[in-house]
Order: sequence, then C-alpha cells, then structure tokens
Amino acid sequence: MFEVTFLGTAAAVPTVERGLPALLVDFARHRFLVDCGEGTQRQILRSGLGLRRLDKVLLTHGHLDHLLGLGGLAGTLGLLRASPRLSIFAGPHALRLAAILLEQVVWPGARPPIRLDFVPVEPGCFYESGQLRVHAFPVRHAAPDSYGFLFERRASRPVLEERMEAMGVPLGPERSRLAGGHPVLLADGRRVVPDDVLGPERPGCRVAVVGDAESVDDLIEPVRGADLLIIEGTFLDADAQAARERSHLTIGDAARLAREAGVGRLWLNHLSPRYSAQAIADAAAAAFPGARVASDFDRVTVPD
Amino acid sequence: MFEVTFLGTAAAVPTVERGLPALLVDFARHRFLVDCGEGTQRQILRSGLGLRRLDKVLLTHGHLDHLLGLGGLAGTLGLLRASPRLSIFAGPHALRLAAILLEQVVWPGARPPIRLDFVPVEPGCFYESGQLRVHAFPVRHAAPDSYGFLFERRASRPVLEERMEAMGVPLGPERSRLAGGHPVLLADGRRVVPDDVLGPERPGCRVAVVGDAESVDDLIEPVRGADLLIIEGTFLDADAQAARERSHLTIGDAARLAREAGVGRLWLNHLSPRYSAQAIADAAAAAFPGARVASDFDRVTVPD
Repeated sequence: MFEVTFLGTAAAVPTVERGLPALLVDFARHRFLVDCGEGTQRQILRSGLGLRRLDKVLLTHGHLDHLLGLGGLAGTLGLLRASPRLSIFAGPHALRLAAILLEQVVWPGARPPIRLDFVPVEPGCFYESGQLRVHAFPVRHAAPDSYGFLFERRASRPVLEERMEAMGVPLGPERSRLAGGHPVLLADGRRVVPDDVLGPERPGCRVAVVGDAESVDDLIEPVRGADLLIIEGTFLDADAQAARERSHLTIGDAARLAREAGVGRLWLNHLSPRYSAQAIADAAAAAFPGARVASDFDRVTVPD
Repeated sequence: MFEVTFLGTAAAVPTVERGLPALLVDFARHRFLVDCGEGTQRQILRSGLGLRRLDKVLLTHGHLDHLLGLGGLAGTLGLLRASPRLSIFAGPHALRLAAILLEQVVWPGARPPIRLDFVPVEPGCFYESGQLRVHAFPVRHAAPDSYGFLFERRASRPVLEERMEAMGVPLGPERSRLAGGHPVLLADGRRVVPDDVLGPERPGCRVAVVGDAESVDDLIEPVRGADLLIIEGTFLDADAQAARERSHLTIGDAARLAREAGVGRLWLNHLSPRYSAQAIADAAAAAFPGARVASDFDRVTVPD
C-alpha cells in the first residue's frame, strides 16, 4: 500500500493556506520526500508524521520553490540526530544546488553531523528494495534535468505459509528462494516449485509523481496505467499563453494526459492563488471526471 | 512610533505554533526585518503585512535558524518585483553565508532581478534617516560577529507651523533649517531662532533587539533605558548548564539585564518547546515584573 501525504501544494510562492511543494510517499518502512520547498520541515511537523524515518529526498528539478527547504530540514535532522543519513536523489542540476546549500550554507567548512549522499538519477530504476522499485523518467521543463518519479510495487505472489509448513520447507533461504519464484531441492531430495507454495499473482500498483512540466506527450508512456498520478495544475487552459511562457502545462493538458495514459486517479498540486480550488477541479474534471485538487495535509492511499 | 511584529518566536527548530526567528520593526515609512529564519516569507503573509516596503534585512548572527529564510524571501521579492532592492545588514560571518545563499543557490550564475546590497555592520550607527537611527552593538554568542540592534528615534522639538506662519518664515529651506535647530536670517533682515518656532523637546524612544547571546554584562550599556527590549528566552535558569554549553543566556539572565539596564518593557522570544509560555513568563517576572513572552504575530507598539 502506498500512502501519499501532500505537505505543500502552492506554486512558486507560498500562501497563507498552502506551503511550497513537498509531499511524502510512504510504502511499508520506506519514506520518500518528493521535493522540499521552503518550510517543509514545519509542514512535516504540522502533518503529525514527524521527522523520524525521513532519510530519502527526491527532487523533481532545481527550481527554488522545490528545494530551498532542504537546508532547514537537513539542519534539523542533523541537530536532532533523527536519521543517521540523508540521501538526495535528483538530476545533476538540482543536485548541484542542493550540495551548495548543504555544504556551503548549512555546514560550511564543517563535517555534517549526518551522512549526506547526493545520488544523481538517470532515466530508469534508481531504488529497489523488496517489492518496491522507484523509477525516474525525464520531464521537459525550464529547469535542466527535470524528472518525474514512478513508485512501483511489483506484481507478486503471496507466500502461503501453511503450504510451506505442509511441504516441510524449513525456515531460511529455501523459503526466500521459493518466495522469489525459484524452485528448491530439499535435504530429503524432494523438489518444491513456486506453484506448490505461492498463491495467485497479486497485480502491482504504481504512483506517478510529476513536478513542473511543459509538455505531456512524452509523459504518456511513463505514467501509463498508474493507479495514481500526481501532477502540477498551475494554469487554467484560458491562461495557456502564460503557461507556455513559464514552461508549464495547463490543467486541461494534465487531465488529458491522465485520460490518455489510463491512470486510475488524478490529483493536482502546485496550485496558483489565481484560481479557486473549485475552478481547478472543474477544469480537470472536464477531461478526467473525479480529478482531485490537493490541499496541504491531504492524504491519499493506494491499496494493494 | 515603533511597531514590532513578531513573525517567528521558536528557537533552532520550528514547531506547529512557532516559526523560526524573524520580527519586523516599523517606524514611519521604514521597515526592518530582523532575522529571517526559514519560512519567514510565509509568516509575513500570515501576519497580513505583506511583502511591499520590505527592503532592509538585519541579521543578528549567522546561525541557520536566523537566516535560511532569506533565500525564499529574496527569491519571492525578485519574482514579484515587490521591492527594487534588498539591503542586508549583518556582521561579516552572517553576510558571507547570506551571499552564498543568494548568489550561488537562489540566483546561481545569473544577475539577480533585484539589487542586492550586502552591508557589513560594525559597532555604532549604521542607518540614519530623519529622526531614525539604527545602531549595532556586539553580542557574545557562538556565531562570530553577532550583533544586537538599537532602533532610536532621536529626541526632537516639534515644529509649530502656526508660529512659522506668524513669524512669516517662507516655505522651503528656512523652515528646514529652523526645524533642524539652526537660526535663519529672513529676506527682510529679521533673525528667527529655533525657540521662536519649535515646541518643547519631545524625548526620543528606543527599541533594542538582541538575538542569541551567551552573556549579559556587555549588554547593559547598549540597551540602557530602552523603552522596549526584545531578547532570547531559550532556557530556564534550572537548565543554566545546558544554556552555557549552547552559548545561551537563561531567562533569569535576560530579566536581570532588563532590570539593571532600566528598560521599560521586556519581551522574550527564541523560545524552546521544552517549557510552557507560562513557565517562561513566571521565570522572567521574578526579576522583571510584567515581562512578556512573545507568540507569533504578536504586535508591540512603542508610542512616541
């Protein structure tokens, strides 16, 4: 199960109601912070989720409203020793800015009290643990090296423990191999195959997060069939000219992407105070009925 | 009249209730932001005061909780063209960090859309305009080049316009010279002296703002007789050991400073979630009855 918590849903400049871009993606014991606008550490406190377990930050791109909060967040993690390390995953441009912020402003000339890993991402899978994979895909935007992220729980077959017992498979590596889909030879010479001890396949599920983007054509394949798509909804189609000039989609573009890619649910964030949430929702619903407009601290669950 | 608006009253790490250190000092058309912790731009919006007229930032010292918000604030001022320039006044250490943040993270390799002035302060008056003077005085703290700031409206004599009229002083430089305390010779040969056209002296008034500090002995003279003293209240005296280790005063120290320096009012900020506001107020009141504990968005007026 994925759980997404919107921490900041404003675009460019915060408002009284909306913080700057940041959201959490939780999967089992894994927690990913996607983008980290100024004020994110406080939004995390306000969300009630707290700072523990926060050791992975993914930056969609290097614009300030998506990364300046990394300074305060990392400083606080170091102060509270909330996490022994912090890994920052991003394209080279955003990663370079994050490194200047952390190494020259937050801890200038000093050894950071937590280990910092700056991990450049390229298109493809960059994080894998158990059934979880996280993929990066390129996004076109005014900031170089912009990426979207696809969080995937892979399709899998549940382990039927009672069948393992009945077949006499001992606890240990044999069970792991069978769970991974491989046959094993037991000590007594019997061969056990996955079909003996695994249930029917459970389909995977996927959450796609796109930050700022100027076009959708190249996003259809990366987000195709995702259970949940989160993408910017900065401009109404009536302001398409302003959107193009600022390297942004329109809300209509986002909704048409969701429809064409056949995603399950669409949530819009990165919102401008120009428009009411209702106007944004209506605009999106025209192409994608049921589209939702995120508010800070909204939580969305994608069940297995 | 001075008006002080507390924007963030937490220490080191924000809480749900308290933002990181920042406060505004308004005097006539002058607006000074003292310190700029992460999230200050949003606190300004929440205060209802808005970003216009914000062109002067004073940093007490270079610790992160006092300056990281400068990145987002300057970025937004540049984006909105809310102000044609931003002057940052601070000791060399804080100024260097502010410059890295603004020049290498906010606008790397680009000409900032607003003019940035980095103004190093030294002990003494560093800003003067009309009746207003702002002085810096050294403060001992773990951060190098820490300063407190004294905002002073100088003593002055009000201009009695009806006397100017009656004496036949023409509009223009003659009136300015008289208002400034100098005699003038009129075109008809009459000599007019200040006592002819000025009322009785109105005493000046002063607001002292001290950030983090580890000792008070050297602060008594700089803040002596201030109408309002704002100073950190991070630790109770019971935790004096922790306070010393972290280069901080105790609340008792702050209250005794206020008493010994004969200040009019004492407000404490830079508060730890360890203690309730009531416990902090009680601790301060023991040495300085009437001491107040700031909350975010509290406003304090110092009348002329």
